[in-house]
Amino acid sequence: MIHSVAILGASGYTGAELVRIIATHPSLRIAALSADRKAGMQMADVFPHLRHLDLPTLTTIDQIDFDEIELVFCALPHGLSQALVRDLPRSVKVVDLGADFRLRDPADYKKWYGLDHAAPELQPEAVYGLTEFYRDEIRGARLVAGTGCNAATVQFALRPLIEGALIDLDDIICDLKNGISGAGRSLKENMLFPERSTDVIGYSLGGKHRHLGEFDQEFSKIAGRKVEIMFTPNLVPINRGIHAACYVKGDPQAIHAALAARYADEPFIVVLPFGQAPGTGHVAGSNFCHIGVIGDRKPGRALVISTLDNLNKGSSGQAVQNANLMLGLPETEGLMLAPVFP
Amino acid sequence: MIHSVAILGASGYTGAELVRIIATHPSLRIAALSADRKAGMQMADVFPHLRHLDLPTLTTIDQIDFDEIELVFCALPHGLSQALVRDLPRSVKVVDLGADFRLRDPADYKKWYGLDHAAPELQPEAVYGLTEFYRDEIRGARLVAGTGCNAATVQFALRPLIEGALIDLDDIICDLKNGISGAGRSLKENMLFPERSTDVIGYSLGGKHRHLGEFDQEFSKIAGRKVEIMFTPNLVPINRGIHAACYVKGDPQAIHAALAARYADEPFIVVLPFGQAPGTGHVAGSNFCHIGVIGDRKPGRALVISTLDNLNKGSSGQAVQNANLMLGLPETEGLMLAPVFP
Amino acid sequence: MIHSVAILGASGYTGAELVRIIATHPSLRIAALSADRKAGMQMADVFPHLRHLDLPTLTTIDQIDFDEIELVFCALPHGLSQALVRDLPRSVKVVDLGADFRLRDPADYKKWYGLDHAAPELQPEAVYGLTEFYRDEIRGARLVAGTGCNAATVQFALRPLIEGALIDLDDIICDLKNGISGAGRSLKENMLFPERSTDVIGYSLGGKHRHLGEFDQEFSKIAGRKVEIMFTPNLVPINRGIHAACYVKGDPQAIHAALAARYADEPFIVVLPFGQAPGTGHVAGSNFCHIGVIGDRKPGRALVISTLDNLNKGSSGQAVQNANLMLGLPETEGLMLAPVFP
Amino acid sequence: MIHSVAILGASGYTGAELVRIIATHPSLRIAALSADRKAGMQMADVFPHLRHLDLPTLTTIDQIDFDEIELVFCALPHGLSQALVRDLPRSVKVVDLGADFRLRDPADYKKWYGLDHAAPELQPEAVYGLTEFYRDEIRGARLVAGTGCNAATVQFALRPLIEGALIDLDDIICDLKNGISGAGRSLKENMLFPERSTDVIGYSLGGKHRHLGEFDQEFSKIAGRKVEIMFTPNLVPINRGIHAACYVKGDPQAIHAALAARYADEPFIVVLPFGQAPGTGHVAGSNFCHIGVIGDRKPGRALVISTLDNLNKGSSGQAVQNANLMLGLPETEGLMLAPVFP
Repeated sequence: MIHSVAILGASGYTGAELVRIIATHPSLRIAALSADRKAGMQMADVFPHLRHLDLPTLTTIDQIDFDEIELVFCALPHGLSQALVRDLPRSVKVVDLGADFRLRDPADYKKWYGLDHAAPELQPEAVYGLTEFYRDEIRGARLVAGTGCNAATVQFALRPLIEGALIDLDDIICDLKNGISGAGRSLKENMLFPERSTDVIGYSLGGKHRHLGEFDQEFSKIAGRKVEIMFTPNLVPINRGIHAACYVKGDPQAIHAALAARYADEPFIVVLPFGQAPGTGHVAGSNFCHIGVIGDRKPGRALVISTLDNLNKGSSGQAVQNANLMLGLPETEGLMLAPVFP
Repeated sequence: MIHSVAILGASGYTGAELVRIIATHPSLRIAALSADRKAGMQMADVFPHLRHLDLPTLTTIDQIDFDEIELVFCALPHGLSQALVRDLPRSVKVVDLGADFRLRDPADYKKWYGLDHAAPELQPEAVYGLTEFYRDEIRGARLVAGTGCNAATVQFALRPLIEGALIDLDDIICDLKNGISGAGRSLKENMLFPERSTDVIGYSLGGKHRHLGEFDQEFSKIAGRKVEIMFTPNLVPINRGIHAACYVKGDPQAIHAALAARYADEPFIVVLPFGQAPGTGHVAGSNFCHIGVIGDRKPGRALVISTLDNLNKGSSGQAVQNANLMLGLPETEGLMLAPVFP
Repeated sequence: MIHSVAILGASGYTGAELVRIIATHPSLRIAALSADRKAGMQMADVFPHLRHLDLPTLTTIDQIDFDEIELVFCALPHGLSQALVRDLPRSVKVVDLGADFRLRDPADYKKWYGLDHAAPELQPEAVYGLTEFYRDEIRGARLVAGTGCNAATVQFALRPLIEGALIDLDDIICDLKNGISGAGRSLKENMLFPERSTDVIGYSLGGKHRHLGEFDQEFSKIAGRKVEIMFTPNLVPINRGIHAACYVKGDPQAIHAALAARYADEPFIVVLPFGQAPGTGHVAGSNFCHIGVIGDRKPGRALVISTLDNLNKGSSGQAVQNANLMLGLPETEGLMLAPVFP
Repeated sequence: MIHSVAILGASGYTGAELVRIIATHPSLRIAALSADRKAGMQMADVFPHLRHLDLPTLTTIDQIDFDEIELVFCALPHGLSQALVRDLPRSVKVVDLGADFRLRDPADYKKWYGLDHAAPELQPEAVYGLTEFYRDEIRGARLVAGTGCNAATVQFALRPLIEGALIDLDDIICDLKNGISGAGRSLKENMLFPERSTDVIGYSLGGKHRHLGEFDQEFSKIAGRKVEIMFTPNLVPINRGIHAACYVKGDPQAIHAALAARYADEPFIVVLPFGQAPGTGHVAGSNFCHIGVIGDRKPGRALVISTLDNLNKGSSGQAVQNANLMLGLPETEGLMLAPVFP
């Protein structure tokens, strides 16, 4: 059976990645594509790499007949999904790739995003979209809130360690190296090629990055107490990829064992042999996450490194994985594309 | 029905790309992988991006039981395939990705590659692997000789124009911009990251590049007279992609019409609307080739641009496309992966 | 003696390159920096790599006291310099890095730039700033019009050949590979890092690029007849550099000899031994231009390759070289900085 | 007065950077260049970007007449300088860019580099070449041991904090992002362009990197107790630059004040305003080091970021700075070249 889906915000990078994945997904059909500012254009003109596909013309959201749509992927700038989802027919399932429904408490949304929640009555039914940890809830959900790409990367490294009480909760430092596509396709001077191609620089430093809202929510919930990590994202000149180096206090071998056990049956999370380091180049273009654990010369210190493709496993791949569950399809369907290297 | 294949030379980039493609190919199974210098290693240690796959351990070629193999992909350095193929059981089909069987005349092989042909008795049965132009012969072949990656790119642009007598055969200039993966994984000082990452430079200039042997052979055959193009490859700092700018004398509109007509039913060759330029970024990671035609302010001059991914459509994708035909499978099976952008 | 200069348009890449060069120039002092939209900011905040310098605060042009300024560098978007220069005190010398005074005939300016010339009465006194060919006129000029960066690169390759009647004027094809900084610091979607970092694509194709106005003007003047070249710029993912491959009909050895003779005494133009190819990485960050000549297997065909740094020799370095002449300083002063590799 | 210098190991990246710097240094003259495997070649063929310079032909070390040399820069692979320096005339001053004399205790050299020290009798006179902290000793030294590039970057961030007892010595974590030129010009598969251009990956993890020998030596000496930092270098696809993110426990404002005070009079160390982050792109090609301090939302935690160009301030620039002192020249002579951006 083929399921009809719509992609809202199809002119951004996560929108394009959804189209790329669905292009070879056997059970999904793209019935509508929206892009407000580029409505009326062909996808081939917005993203020439998708030129070989037979795709609907870009429209405004208003022009979509949602009666024909079983599931909607919202790849919109944050702040736009809440009212939109509220007004959709209840029969339409929603996977939101943005930040609008990630935080359980509307007050947290206000704190981190500076906006009043436009649909607080919907928030309780939104399921947090970290598939490997919310699989059962996602299966039955109407509304799934995709995670932040950084938030996914770091949680894959740390959740089992917090659950297992294996690390000191007051001394967690996460230093990330982030591909530039994470900034999206919007026009910013500091995202021009010459600005980024030879530079490495941190941003949203000192506890200001919005994904901290997700970390605080999830880690505190697991730990049963307040947990605040240090979190530093850094721009590096690659297109796709997040490399999260998580410095923790705990026994490296026990940490490795816990991660290996937790993810043994997960199709997309690969824990490397102890001591091996994962690289972003080994997951780019795919829905896989590689995790490595390295012990330090200082006893009781470990480095847990998690890498994934921000556009895929960190966003659009996760979204399709969740959609598969929501539609009763095999979870891995359409997602076993191997990483592209070199 | 699943067909068992072997990949010889699996530790190089085209070998890895074959594995990547076959990973989601529904009808092929990798039964053996060879890599002489890395025999005994796991593919996960040679190419960590393939870690999620269940693959055979790398072996030497001698260790492979070819009775279990239906088709062999040879991704070996040139000069090694001729003797090897000669000694294989006749029941095994062969797709050679190297240069050993590309040139019809062993004297040409000697001229361009400096080696005596080690299996001249096999040469007559080798079919030149440019699928879109040798499809019928490939279907029935036991031995297919993959084209050079540059050779494929330029021929897609020029063959229909020579066939149609649409251009001046004495004034064809092809200026290529080539991704670095085309140089393979071998150790050369000028292929180190710092040497290449900020440089653009030509190589094998002035009529020395070996792919000229293919151009001369094919274009002269089509034209029924000697045709010699000017051909300049240039290294540019991208991993994947060839951008061939072909300057020809002829009517731009007629040229566009001929290309559009010739490729109208081809699944992997996309001719852009007149005047549009294709980019390497729009085909990377895929088996697609994009072709654009631009008229000049000078009447009777045209620029025909052809772009493809050297590792995929220029090599391993073409090889799988040919293998599909040789095995009686749908030609596009496993090859509809969309390009990866950004 | 120290000469006071102003840089108008200091927040763009050529403005920054002027500051970088002048930072170690013994005879120039930056007395004023303008940047209309960023007036009031410190240069350290606009270009942190210049943080160690003691520079004036950015102002609007109106705020500059031109009585204190001996020479002005105009690094403004085209269309803004004409009226501005008209209104400057006659005592101020001007080096314009933009296109406003490059074309001798205001009708040509209108044709290529779509604007009426705002100061046609000034045009006659503007000297075309290709230093190596207009040195004497530049020495005595009040107003020098810097060349286009592509225009400089190609002219260094071709002028001596046209002057020497060494090539067929009706068959000149120039295929350029261009660094992204040439597009400037303005916000365009197709200049974002993810759009450019893995792509090679042509632009302004088919005779539309504005630098053709300069080629037509200069080459026709030298030849004494109309000369129209084919000219194709292509974006490649490097910051700095233009690699111009010029395909000509003529005797390669004679061409090399003519270039070697013409540039033997030029401090910044280096002609490589016959058959060697120059690369953009070998001139980046410097005021040098490297030229190579390669013969083809087809007799009477030659490839002349010219490379330079578009921001430096193609723009700001040329500007300082001209300013040196206009101020009576040694031509090479401050400009012998070696290229930066890797 | 002009001082004659020799560069041993001129065919590597630090050798080339020495030549680049000295090219515009008013008081140094390159009298000899050695490169054992490339002896007999011209520098223009080994490093075409230096083609405009009039340089001696590359020779073996044996062929150099050291009586004509006042100072030698040794840019050799580690393990080769010790015996070499031992056999030089005592009249020749030496700046060693390698690791051979960095560690005070020959046992430490053995521990970290696996070799017996070949000239332990010379070790006591070797001065550690971190100019800003050993200036007086360097002025009078005959033999200066250049620091590791990572070692310099991190020490600039941490030394004043350890001296000032401002941070917890048991919880220092340094996560570095390293440009690829740091790996040198030697042939390694994992340094090929396609391997590095889209990858971010850690190396020498868990306390194995040899620069830890320097950190342990220097930080323990300052603190008067054993100090062991956690130190993780990561390869990122830039040519030049080290970005060291140092996570410390201490008061951010006090840390910033201490750094600002310590470096107020240093010509090459720039401390940014509190809260600002430095980038590698802002120091590339120069002898400058930028340092930023960011406070965290967690009180008592700070991030100190130090960036420099590994080939310049981290190696060859530091070497010239030290040579200036040893030769009685102004410390900044020849080193005020501004960073190259973009």
